Amino acid sequence: MSSTYGENLKLSIFGQSHGAAIGMTLDGIPAGLPVDIDKLQKFLNRRAPGQNDYSTPRKEEDRPEFLAGLLDGYTCGAPIAAVIHNKNTRSGDYSNLSDCPRPGHADYTAHMKYGGFQDAAGGGHFSGRLTAPLCIAGGLCMQWLEEMGIKIGAHLAAVADITDTHMNPVSPQLDTINGDFPVIDKDAGVKMRQAIACAHAEGDSVGGIIECGVIGLMPGLGEPMFGGVESRIAQIVYGIPAVKGLDFGAGFSSSYMRGSENNDAYAIVDGRIVTTTNNSGGILGGITNGMPLIFQVAIKPTPSISQAQNTISLSQMENTVLRIKGRHDPCIVPRAVPVIEAAAAIAIYDMILGNTRTHRRK
Amino acid sequence: MSSTYGENLKLSIFGQSHGAAIGMTLDGIPAGLPVDIDKLQKFLNRRAPGQNDYSTPRKEEDRPEFLAGLLDGYTCGAPIAAVIHNKNTRSGDYSNLSDCPRPGHADYTAHMKYGGFQDAAGGGHFSGRLTAPLCIAGGLCMQWLEEMGIKIGAHLAAVADITDTHMNPVSPQLDTINGDFPVIDKDAGVKMRQAIACAHAEGDSVGGIIECGVIGLMPGLGEPMFGGVESRIAQIVYGIPAVKGLDFGAGFSSSYMRGSENNDAYAIVDGRIVTTTNNSGGILGGITNGMPLIFQVAIKPTPSISQAQNTISLSQMENTVLRIKGRHDPCIVPRAVPVIEAAAAIAIYDMILGNTRTHRRK
Amino acid sequence: MSSTYGENLKLSIFGQSHGAAIGMTLDGIPAGLPVDIDKLQKFLNRRAPGQNDYSTPRKEEDRPEFLAGLLDGYTCGAPIAAVIHNKNTRSGDYSNLSDCPRPGHADYTAHMKYGGFQDAAGGGHFSGRLTAPLCIAGGLCMQWLEEMGIKIGAHLAAVADITDTHMNPVSPQLDTINGDFPVIDKDAGVKMRQAIACAHAEGDSVGGIIECGVIGLMPGLGEPMFGGVESRIAQIVYGIPAVKGLDFGAGFSSSYMRGSENNDAYAIVDGRIVTTTNNSGGILGGITNGMPLIFQVAIKPTPSISQAQNTISLSQMENTVLRIKGRHDPCIVPRAVPVIEAAAAIAIYDMILGNTRTHRRK
Amino acid sequence: MSSTYGENLKLSIFGQSHGAAIGMTLDGIPAGLPVDIDKLQKFLNRRAPGQNDYSTPRKEEDRPEFLAGLLDGYTCGAPIAAVIHNKNTRSGDYSNLSDCPRPGHADYTAHMKYGGFQDAAGGGHFSGRLTAPLCIAGGLCMQWLEEMGIKIGAHLAAVADITDTHMNPVSPQLDTINGDFPVIDKDAGVKMRQAIACAHAEGDSVGGIIECGVIGLMPGLGEPMFGGVESRIAQIVYGIPAVKGLDFGAGFSSSYMRGSENNDAYAIVDGRIVTTTNNSGGILGGITNGMPLIFQVAIKPTPSISQAQNTISLSQMENTVLRIKGRHDPCIVPRAVPVIEAAAAIAIYDMILGNTRTHRRK
Repeated sequence: MSSTYGENLKLSIFGQSHGAAIGMTLDGIPAGLPVDIDKLQKFLNRRAPGQNDYSTPRKEEDRPEFLAGLLDGYTCGAPIAAVIHNKNTRSGDYSNLSDCPRPGHADYTAHMKYGGFQDAAGGGHFSGRLTAPLCIAGGLCMQWLEEMGIKIGAHLAAVADITDTHMNPVSPQLDTINGDFPVIDKDAGVKMRQAIACAHAEGDSVGGIIECGVIGLMPGLGEPMFGGVESRIAQIVYGIPAVKGLDFGAGFSSSYMRGSENNDAYAIVDGRIVTTTNNSGGILGGITNGMPLIFQVAIKPTPSISQAQNTISLSQMENTVLRIKGRHDPCIVPRAVPVIEAAAAIAIYDMILGNTRTHRRK
Repeated sequence: MSSTYGENLKLSIFGQSHGAAIGMTLDGIPAGLPVDIDKLQKFLNRRAPGQNDYSTPRKEEDRPEFLAGLLDGYTCGAPIAAVIHNKNTRSGDYSNLSDCPRPGHADYTAHMKYGGFQDAAGGGHFSGRLTAPLCIAGGLCMQWLEEMGIKIGAHLAAVADITDTHMNPVSPQLDTINGDFPVIDKDAGVKMRQAIACAHAEGDSVGGIIECGVIGLMPGLGEPMFGGVESRIAQIVYGIPAVKGLDFGAGFSSSYMRGSENNDAYAIVDGRIVTTTNNSGGILGGITNGMPLIFQVAIKPTPSISQAQNTISLSQMENTVLRIKGRHDPCIVPRAVPVIEAAAAIAIYDMILGNTRTHRRK
Repeated sequence: MSSTYGENLKLSIFGQSHGAAIGMTLDGIPAGLPVDIDKLQKFLNRRAPGQNDYSTPRKEEDRPEFLAGLLDGYTCGAPIAAVIHNKNTRSGDYSNLSDCPRPGHADYTAHMKYGGFQDAAGGGHFSGRLTAPLCIAGGLCMQWLEEMGIKIGAHLAAVADITDTHMNPVSPQLDTINGDFPVIDKDAGVKMRQAIACAHAEGDSVGGIIECGVIGLMPGLGEPMFGGVESRIAQIVYGIPAVKGLDFGAGFSSSYMRGSENNDAYAIVDGRIVTTTNNSGGILGGITNGMPLIFQVAIKPTPSISQAQNTISLSQMENTVLRIKGRHDPCIVPRAVPVIEAAAAIAIYDMILGNTRTHRRK
Repeated sequence: MSSTYGENLKLSIFGQSHGAAIGMTLDGIPAGLPVDIDKLQKFLNRRAPGQNDYSTPRKEEDRPEFLAGLLDGYTCGAPIAAVIHNKNTRSGDYSNLSDCPRPGHADYTAHMKYGGFQDAAGGGHFSGRLTAPLCIAGGLCMQWLEEMGIKIGAHLAAVADITDTHMNPVSPQLDTINGDFPVIDKDAGVKMRQAIACAHAEGDSVGGIIECGVIGLMPGLGEPMFGGVESRIAQIVYGIPAVKGLDFGAGFSSSYMRGSENNDAYAIVDGRIVTTTNNSGGILGGITNGMPLIFQVAIKPTPSISQAQNTISLSQMENTVLRIKGRHDPCIVPRAVPVIEAAAAIAIYDMILGNTRTHRRK
């Protein structure tokens, strides 16, 4: 189902970029979980636009209004519902825009799917703005995971062709990566900002890679085959606009390794079972082994650029040239970092809800 | 749910490596679709073990017995059920093996999940052998897709550090890649076989990358957000053992490109709307644009190697050294090629079943 | 999942009786379907409280605000979202009420499920008020079904011990049953109102039976076993508060018949295949046969009565007596009629969305 | 989805009456649950045909072969799969039968749904024979429920117009109803057998009502709205062939009661919270209150009768007369008793799997 996610919780996201409101419902959450609204708002602010020089200057305060599911600071067992009212709503005539599909956007595919009835303004339901309700749900799940000792953090592993240091896969340094431009190697961060500014000056855009780590996971989480941790995370991560790649642990690099190099040896350290390396990214057979969960996400460069681009007119069925007006994020990757964290939190919390069935021990 | 896949069809896979039988049920398939059993068997043979020098010599004739759902060569509307009886069933004492988890396998995670009750023999439900029923379902879906003019083909984009030529993303050469070691560049194929033989001789294993192309897809297939083509394919592909990475179109490479380079320009060619490049891999906003669907899958090296490996004893809680006996595939990648094709076929056919709802045209 | 319904569409309902708002999201609806908001409002008014002498005088204008999914009077393919803001929101101290569970209400079961964190005010998420968003979704589906020639209508088959004439199962008189107290036999209607007034005067309440008919259904709708029309309708109808029974066609009466009497003979009439009786209620093997779909729903008497009732104090763990203050519907059945129609419309439209897969003809 | 049931477990049923085999897969069951095959076989024997004078003399030993999911007498966490090979397989020409649909059977609706490709022999996938795999799954769930102290039992509340004594809703006498013709009032049982014999002698058939009770349920089981206990049980019960009605507790009778009569008062008895009556059937707001769960199921008379019946020829599109040959159950109700118990067990065990999420206590 298009905009619904979850096996044990059900997240449903709605809204169009220039519609009345965007929002989400989140069903299946146990009663009695505390919710810290201020902390949630700080998380949402990491994604919000207009906060710095590399993101769109459109200011939107992403302040959710909770309509249901919370009572006196706790979940009450009923479905949680929250909306963010759009201030920047429909105005003007967007029919020209929908006639000439923007390269790299969903304009053409939405047109083919919805036969011209789609809400084309601002990308409609395909807009990156829909990641705001995803972050509401994800921010809540992160709070509940933290209570269990599970922590999620992500950084900019690459922007354009500038790469950051990788996380330590055995002990990811989640505490040192923070702020709205999280990197491990500060020098790499400076160069990344330069690369963004350079692309911006040329009316162009850049993409990048986000690396995400999760610590504190219990071993035995996930299900075999299609219910594996990778499958569950992949389904939600690929629901984020501009994501074009995803790998776990050594991922694509593992395809070049020998088995003797890629296999993570087990060892008992301080009375606990660990692996001495973590090429698996904490997952074997779709199930966690208790080591940090590590995955990387490839984000394509923002498709909205101010350079002229070749496209077509759907009504005239002829080639034409498009110049996209307005200002857009020359690099969406920094704002996508909390979105990736949110997606991971939702997937993991969903699996934990389904994991509480007691298995006996032989 | 662990071993169940699909929104409009429901595929359910069962069996353990050394159990009585493995099999699948496939519900939700329309009545009246022709089934060519011989063609299916040829497809299954591409995955079957023991057919050449780079795969395990264990001979299993993967010949499915259809118990339900077919009548006189056609689907009858009832759920399809097929089993493959295991000839190589449980014997001997596997308790030692399950006490010392094999690095890179699901032995330890299964133990933690199932508390010692799991069927450890041969990997149990986590065995690569479970891809045989996946190929039954996928082989059927491929037949039905071909009837609609949709064709799927994959090749070995890399084995170890030897890379094949990429598919032409605008016009993938599906007809020239075939056989049980499909490559585009025959010389690369020769080197790949050498790399496998070399690893084998050293008691080691290698991984690789599979690139898959799908042609003939209608534009407008897929759903926004979590129901997008990438999400649907990712969920099933990550259900295949040893898959650690997946990207679409330019994928991870697109993260290094400028937007002006990565965006695929639209053009009208011979009266049809196309993109002149295909970095998107045929998908925008989760929905097909009618160009070839292209994706790449990273396969880790076979974890079963004959070299000694460090592991632990679960019962003794002490470090130990494991030597895996028996002979195993030094490279699983060639046999995984039809499995990737099967997974793609199931995901796409599932989406097509959900796509037949008529959308009006404005 | 608690408050989510649908296989091909996904309806998600949220809200608590005295929360900020109640509402629904409806995902999976094709683009390009017209929506008549005035017609929808008229349908919602049939359910709204405070309109006559037998319902609660609490006035709530159930006027939905559409936040997403509609554009220029048509569905746009994105999830539809609508809310009704509660005017009658939380005030006062409800802790006493939640300590002494009301007999016949969900107070005690919610307490046991949610451990005291539930929103007890006005019944919270269990309130009959939650049928308003159900009617938004159902009213929309009814409009789309009517376009296809499918019409739904229900009447008061019984109130207290007064019974109305049954619908003609072969040709239900949907056009003659309407208004906010729909009956076929007007005299029975008069007696029903008297029975309600009588119970009301005595601080008591009455229940009843709603009979619903659907005409214009294509044969072949529904799936075998758990996806049958009865199963799909039952799941949603039993989600309506106060429903305690449901049967199809002759239903419970068929259990007293001989097979020769209950079987509906086939005949060709005017070139069309019909059954000459309709004890099956239009369904055989879970699948429609093209005859009218007929079902009956038993509604228990409103549990809120002003008479003193025996209950307990949860905090004191002792027996006590409860007097419920305020005024309540002495009979909820008339207001439940459009709710049953809405539920039927949602279930049927959901099945039709899944039924468009072309089956070949031999 | 047609033949798949469950939120937390996934039951998938396959097979046609005269196909190679019927069977089921059951996914999502925790590891380490004991399975008593002998006890299961005794349960299956209650449903098996040919055991007495009121059922079809066709002898089928319903002996399941377990292909997967069990190891050394325990569940191993992998999906459970079991098949029953049909001994009475396809033979002869059934095309005449499929041309003249049998009144009361799914012949015509299957024909309309599957366009002539359906397996018509013996009713195909619509046959009552498919309740055998349902009983495999249900019999297993019953064993696991019994371990938790939850017991399920059903009796013949009515056969034809002979009624048995109702269960005591506050303390149902599950221990006294057993055997293959379970009644509370033995005299009623004698009359029921006479009514069946009488119908049989006249080439006719009779239906009946099954009343089912479940004791030992924890309060707080079930979800609000569409995930309520009634909805979950209704979905599976209506998947059983010949079921035409279902009500809970006082059910249809509650529609005739006053609220003061129907409401179940709470009281503390021996330190436990109980209701002094049980008109609700143990469910309020879709959630259990800890009292016995009681429901009744209406079963229509067997549609296969030897009397001549009016039907049509699909190929000739003309009226004709059908005489069904062979011998059939003149009353299916006694054999349906364990099927209803099985359905209840599956639904309840599914809900319990989803109920283990810890809710905090305020």
